[in-house]
This record gives sequence, C-alpha cells and structure tokens, in this order.
Amino acid sequence: MNFIVKESGFDKKKVMLDGTRFFVGNGYMGVRGTLEEFGKEELCGCTLAGVYDQVGEGWRELVNAPNGLYTRLFVDGAEMNALEVEPLAHEMELDLRRAVLTRETEYDKVKVKTERFASADNLHLLMLRYSVTAKQDCEITVDTGIDANIWDINGPHLPTVDEGAVGELLYIDGETAELGNTVAVCGVMKTDFDYKLERVVTENRRSLRVFSFAMKAGETATFVKYITIYTSVDGVADPLKTAQEAVKTVSQQSFTELLAAHERVWAERWEAADVQITGDDEAQLALRYNIYIMYSNVPTHTDKVAIPARGLAGQVYKGAMFWDTEVYMMPLFNYTHPDYARNLAYYRVNTLDGAREKAREYNFDGAFYQWECQETGKDACTDFAVIDIFTGRPLRTHFRDQQIHISGDVAYGIWEHYIATGDEAVLLDGGAEAILECARFFYSYAYFKKTKNRYELLEVTCADEYHERVHNNFYTNIMAKYTLEMATKVLDLLKEKYPKKYEELMTKLDYAKDVPNIREMAELLYVPAPDENGIIEQFDGYNKLECPTVAELKSRIIDPREHLGAPVGLMTETQIIKQADVVLGLLLFSDRYPLEIRRKNWEHYEPRTEHGSTLSAAIYAILAAQVGFSDWAYKFFMKTATIDLSGNYRLYVGDLFIGGLHTAANGGTWMAAVQGFGGFKFDGEKLIVNPVLPEKWQSLSYKVICRGCRYEVEATKKQVTVRSAEGRLPVSVFGQEYSMESGEITVAL
Amino acid sequence: MNFIVKESGFDKKKVMLDGTRFFVGNGYMGVRGTLEEFGKEELCGCTLAGVYDQVGEGWRELVNAPNGLYTRLFVDGAEMNALEVEPLAHEMELDLRRAVLTRETEYDKVKVKTERFASADNLHLLMLRYSVTAKQDCEITVDTGIDANIWDINGPHLPTVDEGAVGELLYIDGETAELGNTVAVCGVMKTDFDYKLERVVTENRRSLRVFSFAMKAGETATFVKYITIYTSVDGVADPLKTAQEAVKTVSQQSFTELLAAHERVWAERWEAADVQITGDDEAQLALRYNIYIMYSNVPTHTDKVAIPARGLAGQVYKGAMFWDTEVYMMPLFNYTHPDYARNLAYYRVNTLDGAREKAREYNFDGAFYQWECQETGKDACTDFAVIDIFTGRPLRTHFRDQQIHISGDVAYGIWEHYIATGDEAVLLDGGAEAILECARFFYSYAYFKKTKNRYELLEVTCADEYHERVHNNFYTNIMAKYTLEMATKVLDLLKEKYPKKYEELMTKLDYAKDVPNIREMAELLYVPAPDENGIIEQFDGYNKLECPTVAELKSRIIDPREHLGAPVGLMTETQIIKQADVVLGLLLFSDRYPLEIRRKNWEHYEPRTEHGSTLSAAIYAILAAQVGFSDWAYKFFMKTATIDLSGNYRLYVGDLFIGGLHTAANGGTWMAAVQGFGGFKFDGEKLIVNPVLPEKWQSLSYKVICRGCRYEVEATKKQVTVRSAEGRLPVSVFGQEYSMESGEITVAL
Repeated sequence: MNFIVKESGFDKKKVMLDGTRFFVGNGYMGVRGTLEEFGKEELCGCTLAGVYDQVGEGWRELVNAPNGLYTRLFVDGAEMNALEVEPLAHEMELDLRRAVLTRETEYDKVKVKTERFASADNLHLLMLRYSVTAKQDCEITVDTGIDANIWDINGPHLPTVDEGAVGELLYIDGETAELGNTVAVCGVMKTDFDYKLERVVTENRRSLRVFSFAMKAGETATFVKYITIYTSVDGVADPLKTAQEAVKTVSQQSFTELLAAHERVWAERWEAADVQITGDDEAQLALRYNIYIMYSNVPTHTDKVAIPARGLAGQVYKGAMFWDTEVYMMPLFNYTHPDYARNLAYYRVNTLDGAREKAREYNFDGAFYQWECQETGKDACTDFAVIDIFTGRPLRTHFRDQQIHISGDVAYGIWEHYIATGDEAVLLDGGAEAILECARFFYSYAYFKKTKNRYELLEVTCADEYHERVHNNFYTNIMAKYTLEMATKVLDLLKEKYPKKYEELMTKLDYAKDVPNIREMAELLYVPAPDENGIIEQFDGYNKLECPTVAELKSRIIDPREHLGAPVGLMTETQIIKQADVVLGLLLFSDRYPLEIRRKNWEHYEPRTEHGSTLSAAIYAILAAQVGFSDWAYKFFMKTATIDLSGNYRLYVGDLFIGGLHTAANGGTWMAAVQGFGGFKFDGEKLIVNPVLPEKWQSLSYKVICRGCRYEVEATKKQVTVRSAEGRLPVSVFGQEYSMESGEITVAL
Repeated sequence: MNFIVKESGFDKKKVMLDGTRFFVGNGYMGVRGTLEEFGKEELCGCTLAGVYDQVGEGWRELVNAPNGLYTRLFVDGAEMNALEVEPLAHEMELDLRRAVLTRETEYDKVKVKTERFASADNLHLLMLRYSVTAKQDCEITVDTGIDANIWDINGPHLPTVDEGAVGELLYIDGETAELGNTVAVCGVMKTDFDYKLERVVTENRRSLRVFSFAMKAGETATFVKYITIYTSVDGVADPLKTAQEAVKTVSQQSFTELLAAHERVWAERWEAADVQITGDDEAQLALRYNIYIMYSNVPTHTDKVAIPARGLAGQVYKGAMFWDTEVYMMPLFNYTHPDYARNLAYYRVNTLDGAREKAREYNFDGAFYQWECQETGKDACTDFAVIDIFTGRPLRTHFRDQQIHISGDVAYGIWEHYIATGDEAVLLDGGAEAILECARFFYSYAYFKKTKNRYELLEVTCADEYHERVHNNFYTNIMAKYTLEMATKVLDLLKEKYPKKYEELMTKLDYAKDVPNIREMAELLYVPAPDENGIIEQFDGYNKLECPTVAELKSRIIDPREHLGAPVGLMTETQIIKQADVVLGLLLFSDRYPLEIRRKNWEHYEPRTEHGSTLSAAIYAILAAQVGFSDWAYKFFMKTATIDLSGNYRLYVGDLFIGGLHTAANGGTWMAAVQGFGGFKFDGEKLIVNPVLPEKWQSLSYKVICRGCRYEVEATKKQVTVRSAEGRLPVSVFGQEYSMESGEITVAL
C-alpha cells in the first residue's frame, strides 16, 4: 500500500489544484488531472516538453497540445458534467506504482469510470478507458474526440488548426506562431458495444464523433481512446502522418496490453528508486508521490530539454529550466537512473552556445548560463520581471544578469554526474568544455581587490533571491570557487588521460592563456569565512542590515500581492531571506566545514528565512538531519514532501499565475529522505552512510547506483545494513570504513 | 543703478519666498527678510553659522538665534501688522551695494520705514533703524525686544531660555540641546524722542520693552536697535557677558557710523568682485544679486565651517556643506577674495579626521569626505534619506556611502586654491595631507579588472544623483584620476621643495608603500572615453537604458511629490539625468577634450537632462558658451542667475521643505559670467581669456586676482582689454599669448 493518492467528493474550488495534483506524464507530455469533460476554463492542458512558442511580446512558453481526452456524456439528453450536475459520488485515485489515474463519478442514472495513462513505453501515446454503467435504462450520447480550445497563458500558440476525420480516425493539426512547429494529435476510439454514429464534427477547433446507444440497467459500456501526439520538434518529417500511422498501429493492441507495457517501465523505475519508510504512512506516501512526479517529468527521450520548474503541468514560468535541475533534481537520477541524469547533463552541453552568447552580450568571456533556459539556449528571463503593485510600473530585477551562480550550478551538475557515474563520456563530449567555459566566465566576471590580494564577485543575486546586487555572496562565491577547482581537475584529467582531447580543447577555446588565471583565481577567490561566532555572512554588509523577525516583517506587508524582494521589497534591506543560501552552500560543501559550523549557521539563518520559495524547506531539512536537529528535519521534510499533494503553495504573484508542480521540491524530497535521514553521500570513492531517522520512523530503506553498482541501504535506529551484489566500493558508516567484498555489511549504531 | 532689488505690494503668499529673497547676512549670521512684526509662523530666522544642534532622532541642523529685530507697532491701540491690516503701500528694497534692506509700509495713520544690516565690519552686530511717520495725530505703542519663539525645523534647539533686562539692555540666553552651546542675544534701543516705558516683559521666551508716545501729524519718530549675538562656538568664555559688553560699546556709536563701517567693507568687496554688463540690466542686476548672496554667506571669521547648500537663510538641508563648496563656490573667492577662499580650503583640512573616520567606517583607507558635512566632520547624511510616497516606507539611498566623488571634489578644491593663489600654506598645513588621503581612499575603493588591465570604480552615485550604484561614472572616475595625479604632483612638490615635510608626512601617514600604488592607479584608472560618435557614456550600461524625452518621462509622474531618483524613481532606469555629469566633467577638464567632443556631448546630454537640481543650469551655461552655443548659454545663465530672485525652485520634496538660498547656483552664476561668457581660466601660469558675449550684451567687465595680482578684463564683441598694474603673468586670448609688461593689452577680435 501507500502508493495510492485518493480524493473523494467533487469541489469546484479544487479544480485548479487537482489538475496539478492528479498529473500523469511521461517526460514527453504532461497531462493535467482535469476531468474528461473539462475545457480551457478548467485549465485542461497536455503540455509538450520542448515545444515552445512566443506570441507577440508575451512570454515564450511551452505549447499545450489539443486535448485528446475530451469526452462529454449525455444521459437521456442531459449532460453529465461534474461542474453542472452535482455527482452523488466522485473519486479520483492516482496509482503511483502503475502511474494510472482513475476517476469514478456517480450520477442519478449512471456511473462513470475512466482510467488514463501517458505511456512510459510509447511516449507519444496517451490512453483513456471510459466506462459507463447504467443504473437504470437510459439513452446515452457521447461526444468525444479532440478539442483544441485549450488553456493558453500567453497564447494562442496554435492560432489556426486543421480539424479532420479519416474514417474512425480523428485528428487536429496545428502550427505554432513563432517557429511554425507542427503539433499533430490523432485519436481512434474502440468500443465493446454497438452504437449509432450521429455525426462527425470537424470545425471550431474540434474534431469529434458523436454517437449514441441505449443501455439497460446494470449494463456497462466501455470504450477506449488511443491518442497519439507527434510534433515537428520530434524530428519527424510529417508529424500528422506519423501520428496517424502510429494511432492505427497502437489501436491494434488492447488497452490492457498497452497498459502492461507501461507498467513494466514503471515497475523497473520503482525497483531502482523506491524509498521505503516503516512507521509513517503519511511520509511514505508523500515521498513516493514526489518520486512519481520526478519520473513522470524527466525527459527520457531527449537531451534537448530538462525538467521545467513547474514540470509539464502547464505553461507556468515559461516551461523554463532553472538551476533547480542541477541542484535539486539531478541527484535522484544520478543515483537511481543515471541514463536519465545523463540527458539532463547533456542538456547543458546542448545549450552551451547560448550560454556563450549570453556571456558575450554582457561583455564577459566563457559561458554565462541562462537563468531561464528553454530549448534554444537563449535566456527567457527579462530585465523587468515583476510589476510594482503600488504604481503598476515594472521593477528592474537582476535575475537574468546577476544570478551568476547558475554557471557554477551547471558545472557542478555535470561534474557531480561524472562523480556519481564515473562516466567520462559527458565530459569528453562537451561537459569538460562547459566546465572550462564556466570557469572562464567567472574569471572575467571577477574583480581583483589589490588591498586584500583576492578576487571578489561583485553585484550578484543571491540564491536567496530577495537580495540582489550584493557583493561576495557566500553561495555564489563558494560555487564559483568549486567551478574553478573543477576546471583545474578537468584540465588535469584530460591532460593525463586524453592528451589529444586536451590539446584540441586548448586550441578550440584558445584556453592556454586562461589556465594560469583559472588556477590563480581558484586559489585567491574570496569566500566569506565563519566569524568568531562561527557565522558566515551571507554577503558583504548583510550583518549590518535590520533584523526583524519574519512575523514582524510580514506585519509590514500592505498588499498580499506585493513583491518582497529587490529592488525595494520589504525584505531587501533586512536580514530576512527567501530561501536557503549559506545553509545551501554548507550542505553542498559539507566536507569543507565542521559540523559545529554547519549547526551554528543553521540555527542562525533558519529564523531569518521566510521559506518563501519551495526550494527552501528541503535544504533546511537535510542540513538539520545532518547536524542532529531531527525534529526540525522532520518538520521541513514533511513540508517539502507535501507541497504538491496539499496544494499549500502560492498561486499568484501580482496577477501572475504560478501554480503547478514544484519539481525542485519533488527532487528535494528524495534528497531529504536519502541524503538527509538516510545520511547518504558519495564522494567518488566511497559511499558514506550516516543515517539519522526521525523519531516516528522504524526503518528507512533506499537504493542507489554508484559508478554503475547497485547498493541497497536499510537503516533502523539500531543498525544499518548495506547490500550489494556488485559493490566494488567501500562504505563509510559514521566515520568507519567497510569493504563491500562480502556483499553485505551490517553496522550496529 | 542695477544694485537695487525692489518689490512693491504685500502678498501673504510671498512671505516664505521673500524671507529668502531679502536676505541679509555676514557669514556669521543670516537674517531672513521677514518683517519686524513677524514670528515663527512666518519663518523668522537668524541662522548662526557653525552652531549645530540635534534634538532626539531629528536631523542635526543649524540653530536659529532668538529674533532681536522683533518689533510690533500699535497705533491708537490697533496693531499695524501687514498680515492682518492690509497696507496702503508696501515696498521692500535690498541695496546690494550697501547690503542694506529697507522696508516701507504705509497704513491709514502712519508710515513705517525700517533699515537693517548684518554688519560686515562687526559680525556679531545686527542693526535696525525703525521710523514711524504720523499722517495724523495719534498714540503710538511699540513692543520691541528679542523673541525666542522662532522658526525651528527639527527643534526646539534652545529648549529653555533665560529672559532678562538690565536697565535698557534686554537679553535672551539659551542653551542648545545636544552640545550645551550657549546662544546669547542682547539688544539696546535708542530713540530720538521721549516716550513712556509701559512695562518690561521677560517671560514666555521674550524679553521686551513696551513704550508709548504721542505723535502729531507730519512728525517722524525714529529708534535704533543695536543687537549683538555671541555663542560659545565663538570661543568666548561667557557669551552673554560678551554680548552685553559688546552691545554697550557699539550703542555708543550712531547707526550712521556703524553703517559706514559696514559699507566700507562692502565697497571693498564690490571693488574686487563686481562684474559689469552693459546692454542687459536684468542680467546685470541678477548677476550682482548672486555675488551679493555669496559674500553675505561666506564665513570670513572662521575656517570651521563653509557655505551651506541653502546658505544661512534657514536650517534647510541641515545647514550642511556639500561638494558645491569646491566646485561651485570656491572659484569666485579664489579669484576675487582669496583669503575667504582660504577659509573654505582650511575647512576641509579641519574635517579631515572626520573623513578618515568615515573611510574606516566603510573599511576603506584614506579620507572619505562627508557628503553632508557640518562642523564636527561627521557625515550628517543618512542611509534612508527619502520617503516613498506610495508606501510611506523609507527608501535606501546611496548619497552617503557611494557619492565618492566628494573626496575628489575636496582635493580639487584645495589644489585649485593653490593653483589660483600660488599659496603653499594650505598645502603644507594639512592640504597636501588631505589630497594624499583622498588619493589613498580611491585606491582602496577601486577594484582591478585583470582582463582589462585597469582600475575601476564600482557602485557609485553619479554627480547626476538620479543614478546610484553604477560603475565607472565619468565624472567620478575623471575626478578620481585627477586626485591621483594631484597626489603625485603633491608628492613631487614636497619632495623637491620641502623634503622634511615630505618625510614627516610619509612617516605620519605610513605612505611609502602607497606611493607606487597611487602612481600606478593614476596611470591605469579607467575613464570612459568618447565613442566613435564622440559621446562619452555617463556610466557602464547607460547607453542601454530607455531614452524617453524629459517631457514623456514627466508625463509618467503619478504624484508631484514622488522621488524621481534611485532606487526605483521614474528616471532611474532611463537616460534622463537630474543634472550635469559628463558635461560637468568636460567643463572642469576642458583641457583634456577637444572642443568638438565637448560640443557633441553637450548636444547629447542636454536633451537628456531634467535640470532637477539648481546645480545644473550654470554648468550647461558655461560649456554652451565655450562651445559656441551662445543662445543656450544665455538661456541657462539667466536660469541660474534668477533662481533665488524669482523663487522659481522646488519648495518641497515629499513633506520636506527645501526652500532657501541656492548657493551653488549663486556661485555658478559668477562662473557662468566670468568663466563662461568672460572665457576666463587660469592654469597657474597664464590667464586664458576667450570671451564670447551674448547677443544682447555690449560689454562685459570683470576683475580677477591670480597669484596675488589684480587683473581687469573688459570685453566687447570687437575687442578684449586686459589691464593690470601688477600683472606678472601672460595672458592668452584665443590661443595667442601676450605679455602684461605694459600693464594693458587690447586684442581685436
């Protein structure tokens, strides 16, 4: 059990949140958990990874495909639509293990049951099984097909569409406004009963078949919809034709057969990635939900995109990729499905040219990675990203031009993938080049302070985004320093093992002159150090800012929609921060700071943190677990784990809708469980396993793959067991190292 | 003629402006041109130079002395107060030549005439002659003495006072809140008629004598008030006693005798500083008014203060000294009254320790001069200087911590004084030290950009104050570069001529290690250069900002009180600037840029300038004259020359009163006449005289003292004549050099 997310009863007010909560997806498409009879007003969306479009001056964002699930049911002439006819009963059930969403709705005369999945086996395939059971004799009419009247935030992205029907096959074919990408959706319906085809509709952005049949009380009528989606981004010459052929082929298989193939993929995923908790069903279910979301959104078929900040649950935040990918999402895949992680790493190699171009734009060298990255490698972020609600004027923000830690995060992601997998392919195939370019970017961004004989990084936006234009931000500087160190390691590695590749790169990048600079800056870049109380100042002058409590500060808010960050938000001139910054740095570089320092800084910064970002709680959870604040760790773990389940998140900033999945928190939940409570860390040479379980938990079991070998860890409060049939690397448990030669070790705690 | 500023008629709405316009002062005290019967509501003020006080958290500001002019007139029992009884006629007349303010008011039964002057001969003396002429027989009562119910912006600065009378002598003695400074005002009245003393009042913050007498039609009764002011800031042990003795002594002299002594000083001033224009009476009078204001405010008795931004016409802007002193006010005194200029130069030597302390506060070396400097050398400026009118929240401004050009301006002032006078005393006596410390400050403020092999100055507030936190501001960087160059010149001068002093300073300042740094930075400090179109970018990225017209931008204003500058004012993210910046740099360093470049930048920046500061017009006038835009030059000259006469200036920012004299514009007017149209410049070796007269002007004559020798320049459109009985230095006219051996040269144009 603990794989079933269930909700009973129908509540119009929950339509938006449930659409996100009951998401199904396969990394190619994301399908919001809206009911089959819903339309654009209810935010129906089938969001397509990597298909972006811009209309006029609007935000460039992901495209929603026409809705192939669209189905309206009429009983004795009256429509059964949950929005208009109050159901006698209604239940949504998401089976995480099978990645299948089931809906059951009971009306006066009929019960409706639907099952849907976005196939993990065939990414172009979306399946729906729709059953009607008659409670009394009745006449049924069904109106089903494809609806292109879909949710668009900054659309319309398919301004005109071709509606069509070829025999039983329906299709809608559209073209995006900006790049002219084709988006084709085809559908075929199969029934287990006879019906009368009333009409075929191919107009008004809909391709539909309307059919009717009579039912006797107790009878069940079931039909299956096969929906295929192809776009020109897939690299096929004629997406419509391909989708038509695909739907003909798959519709020769039964729903059950196709579902079985889908389930096989998911079974393999859970085998690799499930984390088991005993003693806490709520935590167990929440944790699995987060893992489910990550696997439903990761692109397994392409390295041209990664996982957007709001997943594929809509177009929010432009469907853009941020630094969350590397810092919050890659760890799960690095250690449970490294081939998926490799896609994420290559994504940054594929956008390296864009990052170079952005560096040039600002007169820097190397690679300045995009703050909001889509498929082209251009930065989708704007200079005036927020509206001042008091004046209606756009506010100049520095996400795009000063959040330079992004280049460090990207380099870190590539390097950590190499550390986890030992796979040099990504490095040789552009990853090393990206790391060297990121290092060169930091060198060109930095200034040298002669009176202090050190490099500094000035005017940056912190990981804590409420503070912009600050100098020597701890997180930024330590990430930059690590990038420079990585670059020197990459240089050493290439020179030693791949001298030809080394020479090639030196020439291609004209890098020889940079080598001494990179080495010098790696040495002399200033990173704020703990003061006499052990506290690390988040940036120059932070300690001199006003320090109200979070509650005090919130009491100053005049308008709930007001922006709290720079340039003049309430928190800008205070020590109150949006999210983990020093604490994040100390977590990622925990080997460089003694436990006591990490503990003190957690205690110092937590009361100063508003946790206004869903990126915050996971990090505070993990560091709390590491430094022994286990109650706090549990509290923050549950906070991050339940964000998307509970819907307890901000839906609007100003008039900007920001709802959707929170993929950083989803990835962060796995990190909090495995790296926090599970105490897992891998340094490239050994596994470190220092588990600390919350009071409630009897045991915690997880699996990781390190350098290609599978390990299974089972921790209770009394002992920890590590098993591996193939484990070649030693395991360190609370400082004591153990060989894995015997295939299993058990250490009493 | 053209020495009389006159106004007829009484208008209540003009009380505030006239109080400023009809100012009399002597650099020790400034007396607002309010009527004798006025009180605190009418902003009566006798502002004392160098006497500062702070009450609680209020702004620290100049103290107003109790009002010794206070006089109320009753005719047949009814008070004749212009505010309440509409006068039949009313005239104010300020005689600039004599520095005497006359007031004539006619009522039904009487005419009143008063004359006042703040003695330039005895700075502690304020004189009033009050005459009543009866138009019919009447009974007169006069209520006169000292009133301590005075205008205070952030007071009360004399929270309790002693009121007293000793025989005919009245006094009020008060103590300031912060430092316990004593402020004593004494008064003696003499009449030319007999009267009946009704009573003596010494309570409620007033010391008064009430007396009465009968008049016949046609008779005139005149009394004279001798008022002396001493404070403990003067260094006298017992200010009250000193003031009492002083008033006894002076009251043995007649009004006429004391006036004559006062007039002698002013005659000498006009002899040295008058600038004569033929063909334009309006310009002539306005120009003289500005010279009058400067001489009425310059401290001739002390080097512990300079000239506040609003003069001694009240407490506005904290009575603080800004960079205007060096850039806008010293030139007039350097070239017409160098001993007064010396006080201004020494003022910065006297506040050097404060500047050092401020540098320490921000972890810099050397001297970071105060943005708003009072007598202590502490910076009176705050970090949150402006209130956001939309939210009521204080806005973080960077006047105090980033307007670093102030240290360059101060060094420039000291050096320019030395250039003008050849007097090494100020240099040897702390001036050289100040310059060296300013240079060291810039070195410690600067960052080195390795990729560009240059020093840069980051995060500064421009001379154009709408743009803060910018990098490599042209004005700041060129001023800093000049400071570094001055420092190397100072080092060379001392080493060669005063080796002992040189060694002393090296040791005292531990400067030896800094010498190579200063020399290197003087060489390698980046100063933005003209681009391919000849335009100098005001700061990094300025050219990329939005560029609306000034009118367009102003149309976006929502509230007339809103702050237009940083952090989020309307102009911050645009190219619209408040005041001259690049143009000011090009003016001060005109020898470094060809005329064509100066012309192009004037044309480029003028349409981008809001002229929101009264510091702007003079600079645009001078450069316009230099580059041949003579219509523009005249327009901007008249604008700067008439600011205080017309009262055409902003009175409020938010709810902050900012009225008062505009001493930068006053000094700037002289500069515009002499350096602009007069084409005067002195480089330490020769006088440069390139006059360009506005169309309207037939001739322009001015006098300057260069290195101790007096020169007289008379320019028409056809020729220029330079005379000097003692001139040792050559004169260059439009590039041709002439010896002054003959005592006079005339060059045809």
